[in-house]
Amino acid sequence: MDLTALAQANPDHWSKATAIRALTLDAVHAANSGHSGMPMGMADVATVLFEKHLKFDAKAPDWPDRDRFILSAGHGSMLLYSLLHLTGYEDMTLEQIKNFRQWGAITAGHPEYGHAKGIETTTGPLGQGIANSVGFAMAEEILRARHGRKLVDHYTYVIAGDGCLMEGISQEAIALAGRHSLGKLIVFWDNNDITIDGKVSLSDRTDQVKRFRAANWQVIEIDGHDPAEIDAAITKAKTSKKPSMISCKTHIALGHAAQDTSKGHGALTDEAQMAAAKAAYGWTTGPFEVPGDVKKAWEAIGARGAEERKAWEARFAEASERRRKDFTRALKREAPKNLSARIKALKKQISEEAPKVATRKSSEMVLEVVNPIMPETVGGSADLTGSNNTKTGDLGVFDTDNRKGRYIYWGIREHGMAAAMNGMALHGGIRPYGGTFMCFTDYARPAMRLAALMRIPTVFVMTHDSIGLGEDGPTHQPVEHLAISRATPNTWVFRPCDTVETAEAWELALTSKETPSVLSLTRQNVSTLRREHKMKNLTAQGAYVLADAEGKRQAIIMATGSEVEIAMKARDLLQAEGIGTRVVSMPCMELFEAQDEAVRKRVLPAGPVRVAVEAAVSQGWDKWLSGERGRAAKSGFVGMDSFGASAPAEVLYEKFGITAEAVAEKVKSLL
Amino acid sequence: MDLTALAQANPDHWSKATAIRALTLDAVHAANSGHSGMPMGMADVATVLFEKHLKFDAKAPDWPDRDRFILSAGHGSMLLYSLLHLTGYEDMTLEQIKNFRQWGAITAGHPEYGHAKGIETTTGPLGQGIANSVGFAMAEEILRARHGRKLVDHYTYVIAGDGCLMEGISQEAIALAGRHSLGKLIVFWDNNDITIDGKVSLSDRTDQVKRFRAANWQVIEIDGHDPAEIDAAITKAKTSKKPSMISCKTHIALGHAAQDTSKGHGALTDEAQMAAAKAAYGWTTGPFEVPGDVKKAWEAIGARGAEERKAWEARFAEASERRRKDFTRALKREAPKNLSARIKALKKQISEEAPKVATRKSSEMVLEVVNPIMPETVGGSADLTGSNNTKTGDLGVFDTDNRKGRYIYWGIREHGMAAAMNGMALHGGIRPYGGTFMCFTDYARPAMRLAALMRIPTVFVMTHDSIGLGEDGPTHQPVEHLAISRATPNTWVFRPCDTVETAEAWELALTSKETPSVLSLTRQNVSTLRREHKMKNLTAQGAYVLADAEGKRQAIIMATGSEVEIAMKARDLLQAEGIGTRVVSMPCMELFEAQDEAVRKRVLPAGPVRVAVEAAVSQGWDKWLSGERGRAAKSGFVGMDSFGASAPAEVLYEKFGITAEAVAEKVKSLL
Repeated sequence: MDLTALAQANPDHWSKATAIRALTLDAVHAANSGHSGMPMGMADVATVLFEKHLKFDAKAPDWPDRDRFILSAGHGSMLLYSLLHLTGYEDMTLEQIKNFRQWGAITAGHPEYGHAKGIETTTGPLGQGIANSVGFAMAEEILRARHGRKLVDHYTYVIAGDGCLMEGISQEAIALAGRHSLGKLIVFWDNNDITIDGKVSLSDRTDQVKRFRAANWQVIEIDGHDPAEIDAAITKAKTSKKPSMISCKTHIALGHAAQDTSKGHGALTDEAQMAAAKAAYGWTTGPFEVPGDVKKAWEAIGARGAEERKAWEARFAEASERRRKDFTRALKREAPKNLSARIKALKKQISEEAPKVATRKSSEMVLEVVNPIMPETVGGSADLTGSNNTKTGDLGVFDTDNRKGRYIYWGIREHGMAAAMNGMALHGGIRPYGGTFMCFTDYARPAMRLAALMRIPTVFVMTHDSIGLGEDGPTHQPVEHLAISRATPNTWVFRPCDTVETAEAWELALTSKETPSVLSLTRQNVSTLRREHKMKNLTAQGAYVLADAEGKRQAIIMATGSEVEIAMKARDLLQAEGIGTRVVSMPCMELFEAQDEAVRKRVLPAGPVRVAVEAAVSQGWDKWLSGERGRAAKSGFVGMDSFGASAPAEVLYEKFGITAEAVAEKVKSLL
Repeated sequence: MDLTALAQANPDHWSKATAIRALTLDAVHAANSGHSGMPMGMADVATVLFEKHLKFDAKAPDWPDRDRFILSAGHGSMLLYSLLHLTGYEDMTLEQIKNFRQWGAITAGHPEYGHAKGIETTTGPLGQGIANSVGFAMAEEILRARHGRKLVDHYTYVIAGDGCLMEGISQEAIALAGRHSLGKLIVFWDNNDITIDGKVSLSDRTDQVKRFRAANWQVIEIDGHDPAEIDAAITKAKTSKKPSMISCKTHIALGHAAQDTSKGHGALTDEAQMAAAKAAYGWTTGPFEVPGDVKKAWEAIGARGAEERKAWEARFAEASERRRKDFTRALKREAPKNLSARIKALKKQISEEAPKVATRKSSEMVLEVVNPIMPETVGGSADLTGSNNTKTGDLGVFDTDNRKGRYIYWGIREHGMAAAMNGMALHGGIRPYGGTFMCFTDYARPAMRLAALMRIPTVFVMTHDSIGLGEDGPTHQPVEHLAISRATPNTWVFRPCDTVETAEAWELALTSKETPSVLSLTRQNVSTLRREHKMKNLTAQGAYVLADAEGKRQAIIMATGSEVEIAMKARDLLQAEGIGTRVVSMPCMELFEAQDEAVRKRVLPAGPVRVAVEAAVSQGWDKWLSGERGRAAKSGFVGMDSFGASAPAEVLYEKFGITAEAVAEKVKSLL
């Protein structure tokens, strides 16, 4: 590349873009790790976007109607940090840039949501950002339809790399965006021909332009270093009814000795090469020094949106009080005041009527109560609507001609659904939930982990949660998936035993501010076990005594979900033989773990033998079985130690030995 | 559809295809569950494929050079079972068909590999089959290049549904197939416009023809009920240098009242409607009855390949003894005789030289020894070759002009890689291994689970296995992934502490016949701890005493991987204070669990306090900490209870408290 020509053609632009490149080189050098090449390659695109198009105000980073900028290629985090610093985000100080990738800094190796303002989502695991962006754009459509253009009218911009586009999740994302004509979604593809292993062509020769067009996208191809072409492309993209992909032909590590090579992808720390690159840029200041006029020009960009933001605030002030309250409440992730009362009323009704239904059906019963009073919920399913019971009568279906619709047919795309739900939650104003079979947690895993890491309350409705699924067989029967979700930090895994517990679990999931929930629900019918109405949400304690021992307490049976009924029957068998048996329902291990030790001891006192029953692998149960702090009881587990099989559910429970008789026998063998 | 016209146009074809439809209806009716519509819709395509093209011999189902037929849309299992029964596979009796989806039957809800001959892979989780097929086709290319067309020359046929094509993994698969011009891969798309939730258009409007062409596929569009069009399309596909996708416009549940509806996807059990459908087909026999002439015609199809198979056997007999031995050995998943000696020699050398290297580097050292003597290994990485250390000097790179290459640049496609590796293992003759970061186990999970379920020894090389990854931060730092893999039945999770254990782990992984392995390897350097050479593979015991207590044994520290060195240093600290401390290295919990109780007791005797240290969540450790059979020791765990952070590795170990000092303190607090 002839950098001199580039610089001379547009010196103002050049100096601003160079500031990004120089900060990137300096920060990566200081950290002695990181990814230099991508920010250096995409600096021009980002500069034009921020200077001419992105609607934002660095001094009001949470302004709800800001455009969203998502760095799907998260390894290029220094691009984002440089932009935030240069435009004047207050928390993104030069000190933070200097402490790139160090303990306690907000400038982590990959952008971490919550670390700094302006980081709209955590990226790094490739393809997640572009899939989040579908949720952002859907949220914008839904909220615009609900509140009007005066309050909601913004774009979602994404920078994606070759890695994002190779990951399968990107296909799920672009197909969804194309299906729903998300015209306000604009993706820049950093088309630099390079991956870590070498040329992209080593592993891929997909014609991305044709691929995106096949998914109903507008595609614009430009030179990613030409400010005029970049500007024109964004201008064009903004008027499209289809989502737009702007293919930006760029040079990774522009101007560095490693330009256009896979070495350029990583940390460029050689001092002589750095000096040569800076000289080629015409950049003469020292490390981390941005010339005053350049910084000033960037700060002007950061302030460019202030007027527009104030105008928005004025419009917001003019909205009805009710709208303002609803808008703000949803943004703050606050549940409506009447949620608690509605849940209590349902619990009371259920404990009286005592229906025998599958907990997936219970979940639908709860949603029928919740959705009408929580306009911020958006439901959906990965093509299992009738099985997941996620669609209630009032939601309406989100579509190109019904942007107010609150139900999304995600198609057979568990991963894309989960990531898009995360995007909705991150956008704010929406509380998303979506369903699939528990076993397909596997497909959604990367996004479910990110919900936990980002501390957002996405709700995953996972039905058919055991061998109780029956004939579909072991490919569809989770055995390890409760353990998988429970192993994940900051995740609530609810496995309610009946409709009452399901209502309690939903209440917790819908009032959570920082923790995602997995609702593990049965396919098969279960009895209502909570027959005595309690105002208190017992599930909030994680575990509680459902039925205490009569006579001397000799055994405690712990269980979750569909196995609580088995535990209760085992208790009947044992009590008939004079063996005092307590049954503890444990719908949420994480919440029980969070209780004071005194509470845990009251529920699980030392002394009696302990047996746990769950139609899943035992991993995760040992700590409750062995007793805390080393004071172990004699204990046993009744569950699965292999994959399932294809047969009717009741046959499977019998064949795999998960029965009241087996639990009673296990208890007796330990006494 | 005018069924009469279809029947009259080609009565021989019609009766054969109708046999599939009728058996499907009868089996689903008997099971009262299942998926009728897909087999009914794709019966014509399958009939033409089996009658005119598929190279197979029902009486020799394991013939190595048979064409492979993969039902990616696995819910349509009755299509496959019908074909196997009709063509005369001996294990697929009518009794099995009648017992569809029942306990003990080989006719599971979805096709389960190993249940019946002719089931080439387990399908049901959508998109897996089409991704497996890439591995099948690569395996065929590699083995053809190595052994010549006389011994290896077959096609891989796939039936994929809309669900397969919506799943992201399908994009990874088709991009790989297109990149590598896998011309002998032929995919039929059951283009029926229907998913469970309704019309495909509810969730997808992708132009699949353009999408496949963008990935370098030949696409042929046909009427999926016209035998002549089907035949012509397959004929054309077979001569293509590109992979072929045949878009088959079909009617789901053809001829049934539920035709062309989402209801038709599921179980069609209404007796009157079944009778009406059979009448429309002109099918007059009773349930499960196939007219003698039709069965005979199908059996002739099943025998059609016998001559070709015999000719192949004759050619095979003419091959050199060495080739025959190698060919057969690899197919039987038997390691070469000298593997054990080579591993022992490496262990001896390492225990003397005691290098301080990362175990990912250790892994490379092992592969440098193994790959030259195991021509069946095929390595690769999801674009992290230099980080995963999976490429050895001798492998050569698989490409269109180097089909003998044994290293595959998978691109940023962890899921596609894992599924394609499964396909290679299933094809036979190949022992695949592939690498990514441990954290991206998440992306590969659905395929890793299937390897375990199918009992195939795929090897997953997962490097950067803890916060020791350092600056890339929590998105790239596994904390729950050891627990996730350990929770999965039939999976060996190896976390070796040094090069010696890494060699032992590889030996076990490479001699495994039925269990996949996860190799959890460090980014950071670790010391060689096994300084005394032992011929015996100690890792095979799962856990063993690395250093025993001096003096009275008061404590046992258990650890894996990089934390074993920390455990050893903690032991030094404790022994210096006179506290006798045993260190147990536990490189594979699953193998330890499989030992006799006596062995486990010898390693972990009752009495001493126990502390485990692993830079991961504690889930899975409790059973070793609490003591077996309820005889608990006082115990503690040093590890992670949150996600990681971005900082240098040594800082993270310090900040998260995973140090020798912390372990020693934990022990002392328990004494």
